[in-house]
Amino acid sequence: MSATPNYAELSRVYSRLYRFNHLAAIVGWDRNAMMPAKGNAARAAAEAELHALIHRTRTDDRLAGWLREAEQEPLTDIERANLREIQRDWRDANAMPESLVEAKTLAGAKCEHAWRSQRPANDWQGFLENFREVVRLAREEAQLLADDTGLTRYDALMDRFEPGVRAAEIDRIFGDVRQWLPDLVARAQAKQREETVIAPVAPFPVATQRAMSLSVMTLLGFDFEAGRLDESIHPFSGGVPEDVRLTTRYREDDFSQSLMGSIHETGHARFEQNLPREWLGQPIGQARSYGIHESQSLSFEMQLARGRSFAGLLAPMLSQHFGDQPAFAADNLYRLFTRVKPGLIRVNADEMTYPAHVILRYEIERALIEGEIEAEDIPALWDEKMQALLGLDTRGNFKDGCMQDVHWTEGAFGYFPSYTLGAMYAAQWFAALRRDVPDLDARIAAGDLAPVFDWLKKNIWSQASRWDTPELVRRASGEALNPAHFRAHLQSRYLDAPG
Amino acid sequence: MSATPNYAELSRVYSRLYRFNHLAAIVGWDRNAMMPAKGNAARAAAEAELHALIHRTRTDDRLAGWLREAEQEPLTDIERANLREIQRDWRDANAMPESLVEAKTLAGAKCEHAWRSQRPANDWQGFLENFREVVRLAREEAQLLADDTGLTRYDALMDRFEPGVRAAEIDRIFGDVRQWLPDLVARAQAKQREETVIAPVAPFPVATQRAMSLSVMTLLGFDFEAGRLDESIHPFSGGVPEDVRLTTRYREDDFSQSLMGSIHETGHARFEQNLPREWLGQPIGQARSYGIHESQSLSFEMQLARGRSFAGLLAPMLSQHFGDQPAFAADNLYRLFTRVKPGLIRVNADEMTYPAHVILRYEIERALIEGEIEAEDIPALWDEKMQALLGLDTRGNFKDGCMQDVHWTEGAFGYFPSYTLGAMYAAQWFAALRRDVPDLDARIAAGDLAPVFDWLKKNIWSQASRWDTPELVRRASGEALNPAHFRAHLQSRYLDAPG
Repeated sequence: MSATPNYAELSRVYSRLYRFNHLAAIVGWDRNAMMPAKGNAARAAAEAELHALIHRTRTDDRLAGWLREAEQEPLTDIERANLREIQRDWRDANAMPESLVEAKTLAGAKCEHAWRSQRPANDWQGFLENFREVVRLAREEAQLLADDTGLTRYDALMDRFEPGVRAAEIDRIFGDVRQWLPDLVARAQAKQREETVIAPVAPFPVATQRAMSLSVMTLLGFDFEAGRLDESIHPFSGGVPEDVRLTTRYREDDFSQSLMGSIHETGHARFEQNLPREWLGQPIGQARSYGIHESQSLSFEMQLARGRSFAGLLAPMLSQHFGDQPAFAADNLYRLFTRVKPGLIRVNADEMTYPAHVILRYEIERALIEGEIEAEDIPALWDEKMQALLGLDTRGNFKDGCMQDVHWTEGAFGYFPSYTLGAMYAAQWFAALRRDVPDLDARIAAGDLAPVFDWLKKNIWSQASRWDTPELVRRASGEALNPAHFRAHLQSRYLDAPG
Repeated sequence: MSATPNYAELSRVYSRLYRFNHLAAIVGWDRNAMMPAKGNAARAAAEAELHALIHRTRTDDRLAGWLREAEQEPLTDIERANLREIQRDWRDANAMPESLVEAKTLAGAKCEHAWRSQRPANDWQGFLENFREVVRLAREEAQLLADDTGLTRYDALMDRFEPGVRAAEIDRIFGDVRQWLPDLVARAQAKQREETVIAPVAPFPVATQRAMSLSVMTLLGFDFEAGRLDESIHPFSGGVPEDVRLTTRYREDDFSQSLMGSIHETGHARFEQNLPREWLGQPIGQARSYGIHESQSLSFEMQLARGRSFAGLLAPMLSQHFGDQPAFAADNLYRLFTRVKPGLIRVNADEMTYPAHVILRYEIERALIEGEIEAEDIPALWDEKMQALLGLDTRGNFKDGCMQDVHWTEGAFGYFPSYTLGAMYAAQWFAALRRDVPDLDARIAAGDLAPVFDWLKKNIWSQASRWDTPELVRRASGEALNPAHFRAHLQSRYLDAPG
């Protein structure tokens, strides 16, 4: 008989959950990428049945006892790390009573449904009626999680996305960025006003854009025997580690969206495709945290693909696919891919102004969850912060202001920091990588991307959920998260480099 | 409180099963049409988990009691018919002990895996070693089902595919066909030797073939908001009634395979897409039997699309897609689509010789299951019957003889009759339809297919599993299955009509 019977029981349950989640991932991908309209009602019922089954499995009464007993069993380090991840998942699934889960789901769905027409109508008052209930329930959820973990309410929410990261740390980091970002943006814009950029001449046929995406994904090491590229309205990286399903979308008037989208998603995909096979099926084998995942897509898109060396690789590929044109000169591509322009919409923001969008959301949602402000206070705060960070006026413009995202609408608080943490981690990875490989840019320019992949595989992909986020960051880069690397990256790319 | 609490419990369980089966259908389609090679192991594990869950749900201990009690409850006619179908499904799931189910699955998988290389190697002796165990377990299964139902062993197996159809009936019908078929084949061949057929000139680009398939599917009423057409190595009709997933395959040297394949699968698809919505989710709402399903694909392919009137519709569509060529003349297309040529391989057989392949398999598998012959006896019987029915010698050629199908290999006995029953039902539907609509051929020639769809919808699609197969046949066509209609169809198409 096993010396770790309770751990073995937990491990079996989580293997079953892994298989159920496989089914959920594939039918979810299918819904977004393949399913025709009339399939929706039956699919929703089937997915709800599956999610109820997953929920029942995660909240099985026997788990609590097994978890308690397994703590005392003679586990290896790996098993103990896996037990920690099981504990995290179990707490997440069991912290809330069924009634609160249902109320949250209903309120979020109701608010989101109405938001679809309220946002275009700029109807903040109408939105507020549903949104107050969403906030009330999110606070209740945060309080239960806080009681359970001993964290503050906001930290308890954020811990689900970034295990081990705390608001005190985010305050320090985002506070630092707040100091230097507006000035950096202004200087980058001033510098770019002196530069000439040649616009690419459309159209770019969809089939050719798809071929270009496949070529660049191959260059970036995507394994097409373990994944696919398809189309969807909202691009995403889905599927399972053994079979990653990427999607992109194509606009005939602009090749760069699908190209950069495919590159971004390939970063997510290579993390999944390179998770250690021996851990797959258990929580320790999953990719670590949303911010770390985003650090992979942003390593590929921002650090690598929008850099000057990579533009030299893209230039001949673009000419080969679409025919030669002046805009495809490497220097011009680099300028195209690094435009800085403050705007109202987060998802359209460039690399440099994106953190401003995240910082203002973080400050507002933290105060909202901790009860320091109410939902009514959001528009004034939004405007004040947009003014301070990006110099933009959003008064009266709710639809391009505080109503633009689906996250709060659905009750997802604590997620926004991950976007900018991801950008900062990516800058920190490349700073470490450049220390290890001093001629990195020359290697990239020569088409040798192996140093990038090797570093990420060794330090990130192979680690899966072995460590919590701060520990992973320290082990990978030799120090805690340090926004100086992100700042130095922006300074170097947007100010020091020749235009 | 409901007056039918036990029926209500059953209904709830079968709603849940419907949703689980939805998930199984979509991930199964994905495996065949979308999944890259390295996804296979994880998918197999996930599907096995789901199928185990479905099996547990169908064998839940409480079902037996609910079924017994529900019999006494005041049910409507529809509910009673649904209860009959639930009973059928429950018996099917519960007749065999778990150990036999597992042994069957293992033996079938082992035999099928070895068969993949044994067939090309013509290794009958090697095959026999695994196949004996497959037969032994199939007989054991048949005995248990027979004990349960009071049917003979073979009837008990066949009842799963064709509820209510018995071997005594099949003997009578196939015995009749045996009398006249060889002579009809000889006469059709003699007549066709006098005709000139112009061969189409390849290549036919895959993208154009796909466009042609979509056009003809639209003409045939396929609802693209409730289904898709994709590619797979073995074409099939999958998905769920609300979202039908068809597949086809393309050969650049032959457009007719993908064209006729798409038409065939569209027949299956329209049955599914037109099942009564109010019954969906319960067993009564499922399509009735394999033979009835095949009667829809063969109504579309054989009765409609290979007919002379429909050739007049296809001719301009083919010219429009592939450019004009002499082979696309309507009369020539008709001749192309109605060639008669006895051959060794069932799946390549034409409409007229196909029944011969089925009759010989039926006669052999029935004797095998009833214990009148042993697996060793098959090759000699195969050769004797091929000789008598189609005049072909198969001695020593196992790979194109008794080793050609996957059905027996996997332990599926009792299924083969459904193919030819489907062809006969289809002929019987069109005979009834022609009585109702005397100018049917003129209407089809004018592109008005509504009479066909209306008749099938009223008499077949809308009936789902309301009746057992013989009763459905009587209600739809006014008489029991009558092979005279099939014979008259062949006589009319292949001998009476001008070439």
